[in-house]
Amino acid sequence: MVSIQKIEGKFRGKDILSIDQFSLQGIKTIFRTADKMKKILATRRHSNLLRGKVMSLLFYEPSSRTFGSFISAIERLGGSVIPIHDMKNSSAGKGETLEDTARVFEAYSDIIVTRHPEVGSVKRMADVVEIPVINAGDGIGEHPTQALYDLYTIREELGRIDNIHVAFFGELAHYRVVNSLSKLLALLRTNKISFVSPKKVSLNPQVRTFLKNKSISFKECENINEVINDVDVLYVTRVKKEFLSNALYKKIQGKYVVDKKLLLRMKKKSIIMHALPRISEIAKDVDADPRAVYLKSQVRNGLYVRMALLALVLGKL
Amino acid sequence: MVSIQKIEGKFRGKDILSIDQFSLQGIKTIFRTADKMKKILATRRHSNLLRGKVMSLLFYEPSSRTFGSFISAIERLGGSVIPIHDMKNSSAGKGETLEDTARVFEAYSDIIVTRHPEVGSVKRMADVVEIPVINAGDGIGEHPTQALYDLYTIREELGRIDNIHVAFFGELAHYRVVNSLSKLLALLRTNKISFVSPKKVSLNPQVRTFLKNKSISFKECENINEVINDVDVLYVTRVKKEFLSNALYKKIQGKYVVDKKLLLRMKKKSIIMHALPRISEIAKDVDADPRAVYLKSQVRNGLYVRMALLALVLGKL
Amino acid sequence: MVSIQKIEGKFRGKDILSIDQFSLQGIKTIFRTADKMKKILATRRHSNLLRGKVMSLLFYEPSSRTFGSFISAIERLGGSVIPIHDMKNSSAGKGETLEDTARVFEAYSDIIVTRHPEVGSVKRMADVVEIPVINAGDGIGEHPTQALYDLYTIREELGRIDNIHVAFFGELAHYRVVNSLSKLLALLRTNKISFVSPKKVSLNPQVRTFLKNKSISFKECENINEVINDVDVLYVTRVKKEFLSNALYKKIQGKYVVDKKLLLRMKKKSIIMHALPRISEIAKDVDADPRAVYLKSQVRNGLYVRMALLALVLGKL
Repeated sequence: MVSIQKIEGKFRGKDILSIDQFSLQGIKTIFRTADKMKKILATRRHSNLLRGKVMSLLFYEPSSRTFGSFISAIERLGGSVIPIHDMKNSSAGKGETLEDTARVFEAYSDIIVTRHPEVGSVKRMADVVEIPVINAGDGIGEHPTQALYDLYTIREELGRIDNIHVAFFGELAHYRVVNSLSKLLALLRTNKISFVSPKKVSLNPQVRTFLKNKSISFKECENINEVINDVDVLYVTRVKKEFLSNALYKKIQGKYVVDKKLLLRMKKKSIIMHALPRISEIAKDVDADPRAVYLKSQVRNGLYVRMALLALVLGKL
Repeated sequence: MVSIQKIEGKFRGKDILSIDQFSLQGIKTIFRTADKMKKILATRRHSNLLRGKVMSLLFYEPSSRTFGSFISAIERLGGSVIPIHDMKNSSAGKGETLEDTARVFEAYSDIIVTRHPEVGSVKRMADVVEIPVINAGDGIGEHPTQALYDLYTIREELGRIDNIHVAFFGELAHYRVVNSLSKLLALLRTNKISFVSPKKVSLNPQVRTFLKNKSISFKECENINEVINDVDVLYVTRVKKEFLSNALYKKIQGKYVVDKKLLLRMKKKSIIMHALPRISEIAKDVDADPRAVYLKSQVRNGLYVRMALLALVLGKL
Repeated sequence: MVSIQKIEGKFRGKDILSIDQFSLQGIKTIFRTADKMKKILATRRHSNLLRGKVMSLLFYEPSSRTFGSFISAIERLGGSVIPIHDMKNSSAGKGETLEDTARVFEAYSDIIVTRHPEVGSVKRMADVVEIPVINAGDGIGEHPTQALYDLYTIREELGRIDNIHVAFFGELAHYRVVNSLSKLLALLRTNKISFVSPKKVSLNPQVRTFLKNKSISFKECENINEVINDVDVLYVTRVKKEFLSNALYKKIQGKYVVDKKLLLRMKKKSIIMHALPRISEIAKDVDADPRAVYLKSQVRNGLYVRMALLALVLGKL
């Protein structure tokens, strides 16, 4: 067990596994780099920054969004990809360990990006290889690249990353980005977090302990009305049917929904985010509201931040 | 609901959803461009025309042929691809709407190419995004890119696209290219169409109405012998087991077959086409006949026409 | 049925289907080219050798290792790929013949690389197309590219490819690389082969006949102790559960295992190889032994040799 790599500002060769790795300085480097990527795409200039680089994209869980955005990120920078969408049916299906798989793909590529259903799995892979490994979601563990682009979106939309009140809203127990983004927000003491959810699917206890230890101001409640008029960011989550009993799913589903009525109580300068896919927890007619950024800047920023991370850990910036 | 975009000759930024979009002028532009693509490939010159362009290839139905030819088309022109073959197991499986998926991939790419089992689905995606969307088959709706390269093949093989008698032969009810190619042939009044099929799986009623409204000469019958000695193009279809009852499948299967005996009754200057995959509806020994173009020019033309369409809608020609 | 193409030293346009095709001269050309590829990668120079070339990678069986390494090989040389991982669910699922599929992908690409569960299937595809076809494993038939990089690894690690004693150890009946590598070793009369396995899953009878006809010295036995202190290469195989009855699997499993105790009896200058995935037939603590090359040079050499083969048959060297 190798201990987690801290990233202060030098990214070359580093893994991206957990938000715990980052200092504020590291975050700023990522955001500055993402700004550059945004500019590259806006001017449609073709970049050859990662020309000749090969990324192994190994997914053990279905995904199209994260999978697609990492492919786009490497291709936009001139690199190429080994895209494997169904790892659980190939090597893993034959019983190979994650460690062996990682060492094999280390031989084929310059970087490995992985999603896996088990917490800690991606770190196990990173521990046995020399090339950088990026965690694209490890079960209900972490999803650091998403948390990073979510914070980047907050910076872009609200003009700051401190003095922010974020309310996570919905089913929080099985939402890895809630864990990652909470830790990230806790880097700045002036931030405030509300976790609004049914008691049965409330915050991961480890995150609760983490926030207490950091003396970050946070609140847990069941009713969004207790906080809605004060939030700067309403972060909506999907009720993950696949993790819940039928009875519990029916009880929760449809209760934690954002509609136009709720919007009336939100600040004018605030935003609504969602990690997507969105099912029915945000009504369609909310999409047109200028505060709804989930299908706009939030998605695009995912691309910029992932381009930035690839460029940084591959040592090209 | 945005109404269908007409394409007169300017393709840049346009969607390719239905044959209804095209005038004769538009068709000619495509064919002229496909001729250029053919020349590029014949001389093996590497083209950088679409360098830096990223195509999202999102398939909700199994396919290898159309999937593979679009990948080849973008790569031959120097662009790259986000290839997702099993969309129904990822975002769609979690309940995301097509509209949301389209908006996400709009952020990642310059063009979306999609196949989906529902009629009208691809248009729904096109309606919510700014980038071009190409319909690679929407259920039993349309398959415009295939119809275009089929007509291109007719032009190449017979030297003209008017004064053509095409007989569609087999199971016509569930064959989207029959719909698309019929509409395309109807652009020229001198063309004639025969639909030869069992009554239970005959022509889509909408196409029948369309052709009547256009006053195009067409005929429906059950026996190929009624028309075989007059046809210029015998277009054979696969009996789609997956859409039929067992009883009906057994009744039809093996009845609508092209063999050497049938060839004897065909004109010397005529061609046999098939959208592939071909199962047993064309006997293997027909392949060697010079009139059999389905595994020859018809397949290659698919690549040229798709290269042409990508180049045109991405504004590079 | 076209007879097998012999390869003497000219590779351009040739298929790679079976070890039977190669003379010693051909092998040497491949190894010399692989050395060059190794140098290209070591210096991280980007190669454009196969720029503009498109490889169809059509797999009818789950695989991540071979699939991934061929993608890496073409991309490292500047070419691109049509990666289809689940052929059995698309064209094949609809009943298309392999021959038709091959002819379609011939139109889209410059080379076809295929894995298929049936012995002889890849040759059937090669027989109907003009472009080169590479066998990436045909059932329990052959796996020539793996055998080639295994021999390349032996050369690298032991400094020679003659006067080698190789012991295949474990379940040999369903292991295609055992067939291919045995034939390859038989090119040099001074080599010696031991096949150590339970009787029920012993050597493929065709290989036995082949070796007898070539008058190669080989031995079959059940106990590794009979040969272990003399072997230069211990080639370990996975017990393929998917091919065995439950009763047989239980009987064999755990009996043919390499552990540290066995290592004590091996020569100092010898190596342990494995085609991977490795399950429990090599204990984890063996990995650190300098003789264990399976997760080290053996994997990397797979990439070099496949790069070499692609470059050679595509006529670029």
